[in-house]
Amino acid sequence: MPESYCTEDIQKLINCSTSVSSTTTSPATNFLELQPLMTETEHDSKHDGEEKEPKQPQNNPLQGMMTCALKLVSYFSGDMYIFAKWMENQFLLVQIIDWVLRGAAQVMFVNNPLSGLIIFAGLILQNYWWALNGFVGTLFATISALILQQNRGAIAAGLYGYNGILVGLLMAVFSNAGDWYWWLLLPNIFMSMMCPIVSSALASINSRWDLPVFTLPFNILVCLHMVATGHFNLYFPQVLIQPRTETPNITWDELDLPKLFMSVPVGIGQVYGCDNPWTGGIFIISLFISSPITCVHAVLGSTVGMVAGLALAAPFGDIYFGLWGYNCVLACIAIGGMFYALTWQVHLLAIVCAFFCAYLGSAIANVMATFGLPSCTWPFCLSALTFLLITTETRKIFKLPVAKVTYPEKNLGFFWNLKKQWKMEKEKTKDEQEAIQEESILDEKEKLRLEERRMEEGGGESVTIVNENDETNVSDQEQQGTEEQNVRSTNVTEITHADYV
Amino acid sequence: MPESYCTEDIQKLINCSTSVSSTTTSPATNFLELQPLMTETEHDSKHDGEEKEPKQPQNNPLQGMMTCALKLVSYFSGDMYIFAKWMENQFLLVQIIDWVLRGAAQVMFVNNPLSGLIIFAGLILQNYWWALNGFVGTLFATISALILQQNRGAIAAGLYGYNGILVGLLMAVFSNAGDWYWWLLLPNIFMSMMCPIVSSALASINSRWDLPVFTLPFNILVCLHMVATGHFNLYFPQVLIQPRTETPNITWDELDLPKLFMSVPVGIGQVYGCDNPWTGGIFIISLFISSPITCVHAVLGSTVGMVAGLALAAPFGDIYFGLWGYNCVLACIAIGGMFYALTWQVHLLAIVCAFFCAYLGSAIANVMATFGLPSCTWPFCLSALTFLLITTETRKIFKLPVAKVTYPEKNLGFFWNLKKQWKMEKEKTKDEQEAIQEESILDEKEKLRLEERRMEEGGGESVTIVNENDETNVSDQEQQGTEEQNVRSTNVTEITHADYV
Amino acid sequence: MPESYCTEDIQKLINCSTSVSSTTTSPATNFLELQPLMTETEHDSKHDGEEKEPKQPQNNPLQGMMTCALKLVSYFSGDMYIFAKWMENQFLLVQIIDWVLRGAAQVMFVNNPLSGLIIFAGLILQNYWWALNGFVGTLFATISALILQQNRGAIAAGLYGYNGILVGLLMAVFSNAGDWYWWLLLPNIFMSMMCPIVSSALASINSRWDLPVFTLPFNILVCLHMVATGHFNLYFPQVLIQPRTETPNITWDELDLPKLFMSVPVGIGQVYGCDNPWTGGIFIISLFISSPITCVHAVLGSTVGMVAGLALAAPFGDIYFGLWGYNCVLACIAIGGMFYALTWQVHLLAIVCAFFCAYLGSAIANVMATFGLPSCTWPFCLSALTFLLITTETRKIFKLPVAKVTYPEKNLGFFWNLKKQWKMEKEKTKDEQEAIQEESILDEKEKLRLEERRMEEGGGESVTIVNENDETNVSDQEQQGTEEQNVRSTNVTEITHADYV
Repeated sequence: MPESYCTEDIQKLINCSTSVSSTTTSPATNFLELQPLMTETEHDSKHDGEEKEPKQPQNNPLQGMMTCALKLVSYFSGDMYIFAKWMENQFLLVQIIDWVLRGAAQVMFVNNPLSGLIIFAGLILQNYWWALNGFVGTLFATISALILQQNRGAIAAGLYGYNGILVGLLMAVFSNAGDWYWWLLLPNIFMSMMCPIVSSALASINSRWDLPVFTLPFNILVCLHMVATGHFNLYFPQVLIQPRTETPNITWDELDLPKLFMSVPVGIGQVYGCDNPWTGGIFIISLFISSPITCVHAVLGSTVGMVAGLALAAPFGDIYFGLWGYNCVLACIAIGGMFYALTWQVHLLAIVCAFFCAYLGSAIANVMATFGLPSCTWPFCLSALTFLLITTETRKIFKLPVAKVTYPEKNLGFFWNLKKQWKMEKEKTKDEQEAIQEESILDEKEKLRLEERRMEEGGGESVTIVNENDETNVSDQEQQGTEEQNVRSTNVTEITHADYV
Repeated sequence: MPESYCTEDIQKLINCSTSVSSTTTSPATNFLELQPLMTETEHDSKHDGEEKEPKQPQNNPLQGMMTCALKLVSYFSGDMYIFAKWMENQFLLVQIIDWVLRGAAQVMFVNNPLSGLIIFAGLILQNYWWALNGFVGTLFATISALILQQNRGAIAAGLYGYNGILVGLLMAVFSNAGDWYWWLLLPNIFMSMMCPIVSSALASINSRWDLPVFTLPFNILVCLHMVATGHFNLYFPQVLIQPRTETPNITWDELDLPKLFMSVPVGIGQVYGCDNPWTGGIFIISLFISSPITCVHAVLGSTVGMVAGLALAAPFGDIYFGLWGYNCVLACIAIGGMFYALTWQVHLLAIVCAFFCAYLGSAIANVMATFGLPSCTWPFCLSALTFLLITTETRKIFKLPVAKVTYPEKNLGFFWNLKKQWKMEKEKTKDEQEAIQEESILDEKEKLRLEERRMEEGGGESVTIVNENDETNVSDQEQQGTEEQNVRSTNVTEITHADYV
Repeated sequence: MPESYCTEDIQKLINCSTSVSSTTTSPATNFLELQPLMTETEHDSKHDGEEKEPKQPQNNPLQGMMTCALKLVSYFSGDMYIFAKWMENQFLLVQIIDWVLRGAAQVMFVNNPLSGLIIFAGLILQNYWWALNGFVGTLFATISALILQQNRGAIAAGLYGYNGILVGLLMAVFSNAGDWYWWLLLPNIFMSMMCPIVSSALASINSRWDLPVFTLPFNILVCLHMVATGHFNLYFPQVLIQPRTETPNITWDELDLPKLFMSVPVGIGQVYGCDNPWTGGIFIISLFISSPITCVHAVLGSTVGMVAGLALAAPFGDIYFGLWGYNCVLACIAIGGMFYALTWQVHLLAIVCAFFCAYLGSAIANVMATFGLPSCTWPFCLSALTFLLITTETRKIFKLPVAKVTYPEKNLGFFWNLKKQWKMEKEKTKDEQEAIQEESILDEKEKLRLEERRMEEGGGESVTIVNENDETNVSDQEQQGTEEQNVRSTNVTEITHADYV
């Protein structure tokens, strides 16, 4: 029942909406090593600006209604910042529920409890036992992070929960002991509680390159559990996965178009290990609530994965089952607007990354099958990290500092502000340059006059001096171009070298 | 004959004991890239303090005897610092013997030649040929480090020898050519001599995170040799290791309790590839001589490994053979007091790490078996490195800078000194804060007086000014708390960012 | 037709040779993240010095001819710097041809279009289809780097092309679909275009340790393609590679000495996947043109690989086929003069590295065969990176900063200049030290005189003061030695920590 607490929330918020801007003293202690988990919760002072917008005088009733509706949407969309602020003063148990829901949604880079709730609904639709395991995983991962005294801001954003839900879910999915085998909760809880440890360790490494840890802790821990026990374990047997040993029989006549079409939502569902297309559809809705850009890239990624599967002669069954889609979904979201500011170039890069991810997915699936393992989300992690490590001399592909990542729409705002700043700096430099040039021209004119006077007295060497001055002017203009480039490069270094300051 | 040189040593030391404190000019050139091999040899001025203790007037003969006994113990326990100092002026060949013995003990993080000697005795008890290979490995690794002009302090601490002894031993253990196959010494010498190269290379990487290299060079080189030759090699065949392909038959009735109990010392023996429980027992003694904390954690680690083996339905044979123990032994020692300062929280962390290591051990053993490889000490290395990379906001889990690591007891001393320092700084800040508060209160009182005077003249705005002052006082007190946190965090950054200074 | 443009080039160059020194305004924007691809193109002002040499008065005709011949050689040898300068002002299409040729040669660390042309000739001799695929790969990798706006200097040096040629060639070599299967060009183009992305990402990581990326992008991408499709793929089947399962039948009587001798050039040919000894011979010539030191180390590396193969009981067929040679060729070139300044110690290190590489080659081949993969050049990459990460306290093993790497002969020049500088600094410090000593001696003499005067009055403590002074002098002399060491260590830190400044 999301409506009940939402209305409460709104009433509360309307009451205190005027005082919000004064009470937002940022409590987020900004530890660099903790940032690169996935997305960050830090909210700078620009939020106050957003708050102030509705204060404008509302002239006619329609406009007022529109503003009201927009305001209502703003409470549920994005990262539900106002709700998160309100939550800070609630009981710890209520807070944990919020963190668990955000953790469930953070798998898709969505920091939104409502999306998390809808995702849990999708999981329940798929399988009760899996949903329970997922919940237990998220809960214990969050508790473990609290015990280990990790950064409270990161915990509140669900950044310690999303690996937990995946560990819980996928351990249940790949277990060969059948549903409701209660002993499974034991390794589930142990592995979930290991999540924050592995997350923290990986963040220490990845922070050096300002990279998030993505779902690497989940990949490591689920593979660890599966390969440690294996198919032939007495207590915790895993499903049997074996490498392909013969050419699959693929005839294009057998291609089932409706199933192929269905593979797009199924691919999104497979991010959580679900093969039910309705579950996938519910996940798409949950993404749309928080961020339409994310939603579009998710669908795009799943489609790219399907096409790549067809191009690489994959068995149709795998494609229908969404196995070619889920990694591309995540990779396409991560590159397309989440960690890079969305431009056309970045959009294309996201599609290329999705193709590369599909290729890598096939490769990793074949390698892992040798050990009886599924490919998990390794392909997504490796391809997204590769594409985030690219350095280029163009500003059109701008990687956001991980500490500033929120959701694609807001990231764009951050990027546009930065662009304005760059432009102003550029113009400022131009003006200064022109001023200097004018001055030097005046200087030259004066010099010329002096020369002329001297010439009257006698001597010809002075002309060369003037020429030299001209040359320096030209090189000044050339420097102007490189200075712009310098501004860009210093911005880059500020970001990448932030961890040394 | 360890007695002979020990007595000599003591006589010499008693003679020069008064002059020790004046001659300790630290020659250890402190190269950052070289430090993170395992534990460090650097000794700060606190040693002089230890020397000065026996100088107290001895009132009664019993107290005198006690002091004398403690003094005698101090010569053999810990890292035998005084002996190491005395060794510095001996012949190179005698020094190399010391380095080889220290190298043999450094596998267990023990920088003590006496422990090394006892360990060699244990190895001889197990198998002459293996002991010979181990000795050759340590010797050539140390010689190679000398040729490559590595840091003399690190060589003297045996930090270039411990990988050598493991390479030598395990190449003999896993060789399928039988004992006394003399040709084996050729790859043994080559691989041992590669140890310092791989150590140095890994230290360059790990030093960026202030991490030691542990036994990674050994793991890399032994796996390299085994997989390069393999079971079907004509010259250097390896034992056949194959992945499990059926469910093992485990019935709890067949559990042999005495054998299970014996698996604890066997697990410690398996660190050196030995399955003789007496050898394991001898190793426990050698650990106790140097550091009781290390010894306790070794036994604890082996027990945790055994329990984990039972929990994960491992074949009993593997558990009896100590295969579940040796990685946990090393992981538990490393976390429990060696690289973290021992507190209750760290003690629990060490046990969790041992459990994680056991899980990882099973996983890696299954993966490596696919290539016909044993799991070596990969599980220990990976789990310990993961746990050393954790960052947390509590001070109770304090990672020592690798350059300051010696042995658990001394590490504790270092930590307590640091804690005192923090406390003093905290109190200092408190006092300063109080002084500032008092001042501001005085200021306020004066202002109030001024206000009163003005009030007499007329005006009421001044009251708000005083209120503002009160508010700043409150926020000052709040800041006090965060300042303490800052002190902590700066300490952390000093350590982790030490390599950039 | 290399002659045609070469003569043009020379005429052009002779005409403008006098103005070269004035026009060399370095356009290379020096982005640190982009440098560590392989070798660098940056040219410091020393080149102007080289230009000035021919200006010396030519006394007799023979000397003149010699100078002329040397000048001509200097146009074709090394990195053909003058030609590259001249190319900068040509059409983009002509430039791309230059970049593609340099890219083809950069596989062997040779930045020389003439060598590249000869290498393409060798490839055509081997197989038309492979040569075409190699060309397509280089071309599209270069184009992709241009689209991604990578550093123009690095592109012009062929640093974005060499992975492309290997990807193209080896995808054709390992394809099981037979020659002239045109569909193969599709994944070929996709993978080639991924090269700059993976290169850029890896450079971001390796730059932290000032390491080049070598052929890692090629290894990653070819393995990715091969394992993603596999032997049983319908569209892009790969050759079947399986792990060894029985002891090979090796009898020394069957050893074919001529074939063994031939395996040396074949090993060099296998760098490009070619088993034709004539092709290998042509490659040796192409290396000799650019750099004789590189050529010698290539032959040496191939020989070491052959010997290692015999020592490790490899099947003779593999040795004849050059599979033991090509990694050692690359490793020996990289260590022997390319990234380390060539001294006798480095020469020995290069041979040790080649042996290690051969060992590693066998290990990796066995591991990769489990996944149906060839070992590619992983062994070279891993062994060379390991040997480049070594830190040592001797100056004889001097790793050049990657930004300063050109070709062995020029690297030596850079190193000798640095050595001269060190010597001067050393002497300067010595002189200063002596001056200080003399001063202190004078001081002492004066003090002695003062003492004598006091002694006349009465007192004996003054003698000890003089002694103390003597002691400080001795310790000053000792410090002198450590200061020299400091000079060295600061040089090292300047290089390794360059990325933080």
